[in-house]
Amino acid sequence: MSYTAPLKDMQFVLNELAGLETISSLPGCEDATPETVDAVLEENARFCSEVIAPLNVAGDREPSSWQDGKVTTTKGFKEAFRAYAEAGWQGVQHPVEFGGQGLPKVVATPCMEMLNAANLSFALCPLLTDGAIEALMTAGSREQQETYLANFISGKWTGTMNLTEPQAGSDLALVRTRAEPQGDGTYKLFGTKIFITYGEHDMAENIVHLVLARTPDAPSGVKGISLFIVPKFLVNADGSLGARNDVHCVSIEHKLGIKASPTAVLQFGDHGGALGYLIGEENRGLEYMFIMMNAARFAVGMQGISVAERAYQKAVQYAKDRIQSRDLAGSPEPVAIIHQPDVKRMLMSMRAQTEAARALAYVGAAAHDIALAHPDEKVRQEQEAFYEFLVPIIKGWSTELSVDVASTGVQVHGGMGFIEETGAAQYYRDARILPIYEGTTAIQANDLIGRKTVRDGGATAKAILAQVRGTAAQLSAADNASLQAIGRQLAQGADALEDVVNYVTGNIKADIKAVFAGSVPYLKQAGIVLGGWQMGRAALAAAQRLQQGQGDARFYEAKIVTARFFAEHILPQALAYRTEIVEGAGSVLGLQEDQF
Amino acid sequence: MSYTAPLKDMQFVLNELAGLETISSLPGCEDATPETVDAVLEENARFCSEVIAPLNVAGDREPSSWQDGKVTTTKGFKEAFRAYAEAGWQGVQHPVEFGGQGLPKVVATPCMEMLNAANLSFALCPLLTDGAIEALMTAGSREQQETYLANFISGKWTGTMNLTEPQAGSDLALVRTRAEPQGDGTYKLFGTKIFITYGEHDMAENIVHLVLARTPDAPSGVKGISLFIVPKFLVNADGSLGARNDVHCVSIEHKLGIKASPTAVLQFGDHGGALGYLIGEENRGLEYMFIMMNAARFAVGMQGISVAERAYQKAVQYAKDRIQSRDLAGSPEPVAIIHQPDVKRMLMSMRAQTEAARALAYVGAAAHDIALAHPDEKVRQEQEAFYEFLVPIIKGWSTELSVDVASTGVQVHGGMGFIEETGAAQYYRDARILPIYEGTTAIQANDLIGRKTVRDGGATAKAILAQVRGTAAQLSAADNASLQAIGRQLAQGADALEDVVNYVTGNIKADIKAVFAGSVPYLKQAGIVLGGWQMGRAALAAAQRLQQGQGDARFYEAKIVTARFFAEHILPQALAYRTEIVEGAGSVLGLQEDQF
Repeated sequence: MSYTAPLKDMQFVLNELAGLETISSLPGCEDATPETVDAVLEENARFCSEVIAPLNVAGDREPSSWQDGKVTTTKGFKEAFRAYAEAGWQGVQHPVEFGGQGLPKVVATPCMEMLNAANLSFALCPLLTDGAIEALMTAGSREQQETYLANFISGKWTGTMNLTEPQAGSDLALVRTRAEPQGDGTYKLFGTKIFITYGEHDMAENIVHLVLARTPDAPSGVKGISLFIVPKFLVNADGSLGARNDVHCVSIEHKLGIKASPTAVLQFGDHGGALGYLIGEENRGLEYMFIMMNAARFAVGMQGISVAERAYQKAVQYAKDRIQSRDLAGSPEPVAIIHQPDVKRMLMSMRAQTEAARALAYVGAAAHDIALAHPDEKVRQEQEAFYEFLVPIIKGWSTELSVDVASTGVQVHGGMGFIEETGAAQYYRDARILPIYEGTTAIQANDLIGRKTVRDGGATAKAILAQVRGTAAQLSAADNASLQAIGRQLAQGADALEDVVNYVTGNIKADIKAVFAGSVPYLKQAGIVLGGWQMGRAALAAAQRLQQGQGDARFYEAKIVTARFFAEHILPQALAYRTEIVEGAGSVLGLQEDQF
Repeated sequence: MSYTAPLKDMQFVLNELAGLETISSLPGCEDATPETVDAVLEENARFCSEVIAPLNVAGDREPSSWQDGKVTTTKGFKEAFRAYAEAGWQGVQHPVEFGGQGLPKVVATPCMEMLNAANLSFALCPLLTDGAIEALMTAGSREQQETYLANFISGKWTGTMNLTEPQAGSDLALVRTRAEPQGDGTYKLFGTKIFITYGEHDMAENIVHLVLARTPDAPSGVKGISLFIVPKFLVNADGSLGARNDVHCVSIEHKLGIKASPTAVLQFGDHGGALGYLIGEENRGLEYMFIMMNAARFAVGMQGISVAERAYQKAVQYAKDRIQSRDLAGSPEPVAIIHQPDVKRMLMSMRAQTEAARALAYVGAAAHDIALAHPDEKVRQEQEAFYEFLVPIIKGWSTELSVDVASTGVQVHGGMGFIEETGAAQYYRDARILPIYEGTTAIQANDLIGRKTVRDGGATAKAILAQVRGTAAQLSAADNASLQAIGRQLAQGADALEDVVNYVTGNIKADIKAVFAGSVPYLKQAGIVLGGWQMGRAALAAAQRLQQGQGDARFYEAKIVTARFFAEHILPQALAYRTEIVEGAGSVLGLQEDQF
């Protein structure tokens, strides 16, 4: 079995939780009518399942390879990327002006999910290009936009993000790549960048690197970093490609997973200097990169959801096919293992976490759309704060759970899961990068604490918690045992999260290390409670549809069961996190270096 | 860095928690004096670090390979196995009569830990041979013992366990391999066995397969399975090797991890029948196999602890070496990442879980020794029940946590963790088989519920819980804030576990599926609470030594901090499991097959 897009769940989340209808009515989003959205999603689903998904295994078995500075991608990738670009998928969320479809993020998000589920390695190339588009849209000059955007959106060229250097990973203050002004407005760059995804490949005519570097007089630290465009081939005034620039791929990495995606070491300026063009102003590079990174972090969160969904589908299929052991309460004949309670538990755990993470991410995308387009400034600000609060959670929580879900997927397969030919192991290997790149979970958690919780004294967190409690109250008041059970767990989760928010804001000044000792547990707890909130909302919506006798009753019943599973099996962890964070800082920090 | 055996912690656990002194005084265990044990462990540590550990990476990069029915192991493995055998390590726990050292299991256990930590793939060969020895010691005839045991213990021959068939994995009732009596007391076997670890290799002169098969008139199901010896080369009356038997390795698997360990598909009887010799009586094969499996399950649990320890050591080293980001509360200069709170939290989580699992396993091994050798029958029975209760937990919990620990180890390394050359990824890949083979975690959990909890109405579980409460009370009464904190969490964990034991015993008759829906959570909860109990005992012992001013104060202080970390960061999960198990069965079982 390959990949079947979960269109029904996507549409449920879009319509019932993310408020697609509201977004369609916003200025500039009018094209996102229900009919258009349905058509886009169905066509995207077909394309991803039929064209992209079949290349996933091939990419793992015959990864990108490097020779003499050139990278050859897996057979079929080049043609698939052509088809992807020609069908216009690179432009879903980008401006019509440059050839895009101009659809809101909430519509682009399920497309992103499908592409990543079909093939994580393949999807990274468009993902990085999206980031480059975002950066140029925000901080590029009109001329830069005109030179690059249409070529990105048409898939003629692709983009990369060049941040990491051997000594500068999570800490960009340590970036050393130099950019020397040439007196004509251009710069020459010198340095080494590592971990550059699709930093070299054969799928497009040109590769445009967005590179963090320091000008000679730049202040030290993060305030002295500028952002440059460094194309692989220089671009002539008429837009045609000119000379080869002095940026070269000296090797690609041998990785645990996402093997088809080439991870390049790029050498800038070994032969006289790589010509670069400043984006925006000097020393504001990190600020621009953060814009790009916010979008990329959201996208990596989606990657987590995608690989979780794919792993879930594979495990379900195996559990339905594999005959083994008798039914515990049934006949002596062996049955499909999906009838074994623990297999059901594993599948439900995979399913519930994936659905919760999807719901939270789509709701986040909707908030981003509203923040951009709503006529009321207060609403824009509220939704902007909500989205910003969610980004590190969507990135950190969805990717952490994807590792767990993929691991459970292997377990469902038993011994066959450990055999590479089965395919379940690929998801386990691929997923492992997701909590690391685009900022590790700890980096996301720092952001959640610093910029998103402490900076406004916990106001955004508390505002969200008030909404969670509202949902919990609605659930508890319902005349339905399942909804009540969900409401009870959700209310307890909200209490636990509130204790933690108070602990974080109350102790940050007096004992910053103690607060950061609980940073990742706080992020995971927030993910669980907000994911549980969305599942609670989903259960309420499903119950209403059932009561109205509308739609597919078995789908809605399953949604309520899944929400209840999340509430009873995942949400209780929020209390354990509370204890860990509020009581446990001393034991995190208690050992000296030599005691390890 | 390679592997450094944690001798200090091992000796602490042996002496302070597992009661090595008591065991040395048991009949037959007199050789296990503190001096002998120290010498054995030190020499084993040296051997494993210097001879075996360096082959671990090579085994991953150049796995065993198959050609024309022959398997060539990784370069160096053959010589290392020779050295292992010649140094007498295969015989540590086996009878002096057949060339072993006759040491108790509690001493063999740290040796097993070291070998597995040094090289999981290599260690599997001796591990399987141990199982074959155990089976023949229990059920083999005197003649069979004389033919095989000395050759196993000297490392001249190795053993395998042949259970799984394509249609019979977790459910051995489905075994189809036929054994046809030849009228002279021998049998001819026909069938296919898969997943046979070291089923074919070049490290020993002969390979002796222990094979589950059915005789022609055997009853169906598990009560019609017999156990046979099927040597690769037949053994002449004088003990020399004779003709090649009709068992052939037709392929080996391409696996996610433990790649150096050949996983064979064995074909029995394609050329007239594989000559086999019945062990014990017909139709009692599963019973004998269970004896062997109990030892093997304990050993696989040790593998989990081993790989967790190795992953921890690697992560610590990286965290001390890698300079990145400033200290949160310190100077602006970048520091080693071990000073970042979340890195400390990750390392503490790896360390605390590994130490807890080690303590529980060694205490289990001690119980096994006492159960065999104690003069008082009542003590023997109690300790036997205790050991039997622990085996599925040691197997299931230690291996599940090893996957988590190895994954955290990758995370500590950031992007470098995903690069295969770094080595952290190998542990993540290798560990993944551990919760699967020798019975998946669900199979262990079935055993824990069925044979170990329900059969005696929860009596053993309750007896253990009484001891846990005793430790919690001691901790709570101590004049030490850390011990008190541990005591508080331990008492809550015991309450949660008791609720679950009552739920299991109280509902098994009325709703067997609901009970089994919580089987794995119950196993994990039991692991956490019993592991926390051992860490509580460790903290008490360490506090006492500190008070007495004996030994290495910084070691004992670290032990208390680590125990407190376990109590505050891991033990609270016991409450989440309680909710999951007691309240959550309905949502596990709520979906029908077509709703997945």
